[in-house]
Amino acid sequence: MFELHVQLAKDCAVVGDLPLCRVLLMNDRRFPWLILVPRREEVTEVFQLTALDQRLLWEEVGAVAAALAADTRADKMNIGALGNVVSQLHLHVVARFQGDVAWPGPVWGSGSAQRFDDEALEQRLCELVDLLQPLSLSAH
Amino acid sequence: MFELHVQLAKDCAVVGDLPLCRVLLMNDRRFPWLILVPRREEVTEVFQLTALDQRLLWEEVGAVAAALAADTRADKMNIGALGNVVSQLHLHVVARFQGDVAWPGPVWGSGSAQRFDDEALEQRLCELVDLLQPLSLSAH
Repeated sequence: MFELHVQLAKDCAVVGDLPLCRVLLMNDRRFPWLILVPRREEVTEVFQLTALDQRLLWEEVGAVAAALAADTRADKMNIGALGNVVSQLHLHVVARFQGDVAWPGPVWGSGSAQRFDDEALEQRLCELVDLLQPLSLSAH
Repeated sequence: MFELHVQLAKDCAVVGDLPLCRVLLMNDRRFPWLILVPRREEVTEVFQLTALDQRLLWEEVGAVAAALAADTRADKMNIGALGNVVSQLHLHVVARFQGDVAWPGPVWGSGSAQRFDDEALEQRLCELVDLLQPLSLSAH
């Protein structure tokens, strides 16, 4: 049975489920930063997924990236599958801006997260549910 | 007409062409590091490609990552589309090892490249052509 890695659960809030992936919001006000986690067991690399799941994964990543880019008017989208710390397969989708605190470097390993307060987090989650509902998101 | 960005041409050596992407070897001995560049004009984001090209891109990225992982016996593969410095769409595929100089951080922005000498570069390119030929690579 799929279970979200404890570190991802700690660092993120759940937005909802797409057909393949659980969508998380990284709890860090510095960057508009979503994470997609395929709901499959014991997968650490993209190429360990079936061909069908790989196709679904990239369709979901592409659609989420396009939606977040339009929503935030980002200068550049960053997409990454690293997993050096948390090996459970997860895909980062981050909206980047010239002049954000990590620009032009990567967000990974850049300083410490600045968490949302409860009210701002709740509001951001509602906005994201609205944004991603056209992609068949089921909210949690 | 597709033209490789001058910065990528400077930092990398060309391995060959897959059906969609030009495959480059990052000229940095510290990491086994390939870059795939879709041979399309003026594309900076994955979701700007046609649906067919997106599918091809991710199939090529997945196949190259699987081949490089098997070849290097990597602990983890890192895949990333950043483009904060060079906006021409390009996908990084990097074999990572516990204890490599950037572990567990990202390779992007980590220190300076250590370039191959001419002979070692030529040999590595030959090995990569052999490795990727089953994926319909045309060598340059």
